[in-house]
Amino acid sequence: MKKFEEKTIQSQPIYSGKVISLKVDDVSLPNGETGKREIINHPGAVAVIAITENNKFLLVEQYRKALERSIIEIPAGKLEKGEEPIVTARRELEEETGYTSDHFEFVQAFATSPGFADEIIHIYVAEKLKKLDIPVDLDEDEFVELMEVSLEEAEAMVADGRIYDAKTAFAILWLKLKMNI
Amino acid sequence: MKKFEEKTIQSQPIYSGKVISLKVDDVSLPNGETGKREIINHPGAVAVIAITENNKFLLVEQYRKALERSIIEIPAGKLEKGEEPIVTARRELEEETGYTSDHFEFVQAFATSPGFADEIIHIYVAEKLKKLDIPVDLDEDEFVELMEVSLEEAEAMVADGRIYDAKTAFAILWLKLKMNI
Repeated sequence: MKKFEEKTIQSQPIYSGKVISLKVDDVSLPNGETGKREIINHPGAVAVIAITENNKFLLVEQYRKALERSIIEIPAGKLEKGEEPIVTARRELEEETGYTSDHFEFVQAFATSPGFADEIIHIYVAEKLKKLDIPVDLDEDEFVELMEVSLEEAEAMVADGRIYDAKTAFAILWLKLKMNI
Repeated sequence: MKKFEEKTIQSQPIYSGKVISLKVDDVSLPNGETGKREIINHPGAVAVIAITENNKFLLVEQYRKALERSIIEIPAGKLEKGEEPIVTARRELEEETGYTSDHFEFVQAFATSPGFADEIIHIYVAEKLKKLDIPVDLDEDEFVELMEVSLEEAEAMVADGRIYDAKTAFAILWLKLKMNI
């Protein structure tokens, strides 16, 4: 997996923040020339395709400052340092939806923006959801609204632009295939 | 689409580069508290699900410095300033694969990493591909290897980790649904 490798000549740290950091690497290109790569480091994330007992699935609406709008997504969150993705998956499902599950299964992991970021998102499916007796608090800067929708309702939200997010687009196709529609 | 809106109190530009820029915004949260949002601005991108006349589709392998490995993706590229996504789609298909098409159709657009970036990727499908008589040059810092694969081969590449990319994961499910498998 090193085809066309770009070796680092020099790496310049630009910013180190709460969530992301940015560096600019000078690299040697396969043709012997040099180039610059602007790279975001991110802790990684999980997202959960959460299916209720009556075949609805869970979505959350939240404001995304980068887009300056609220969008609707499957429940998701960032990995804490050293945390196993499955642990994050359960925590984020509980915090964002008030549901939990004993039936988590790994679906797929992928880079969200490999052209400039190292963020990997780990997708799980959670079935046989149970309501938590005592809700778990969200992070102090997080505000989400829960929805339970059918696949048809989700597809209407894609059509009207309220669903506008890669992991959720993937989840909807995955559910279509699973449900054999 | 302004639910839970986070108004900007102050925006601090940190970095402005060749591809991305970074700013940190102080925002007022829906509960009256304040928070910080680290935001990457990106010009946006397109990706093309390119299907040959014998139902294979096109993938390109390239080194992704952010991941420090090469991965296999559907053909894709960044929008030039002011460029219509469909124009980018045709250009990137031609540059990265040596094929073109008169049959482009819009599939879906989505944010790749709405938690920290405004990158939107516009997905197209291109059918009835034709080989270009004269190949088009790639960008000077771009090195890609073309593959023509079946859906089964692509799924094997997901399983062995060579396909590891959100837009390509979406494309494979989209093709499965289209081909009714």
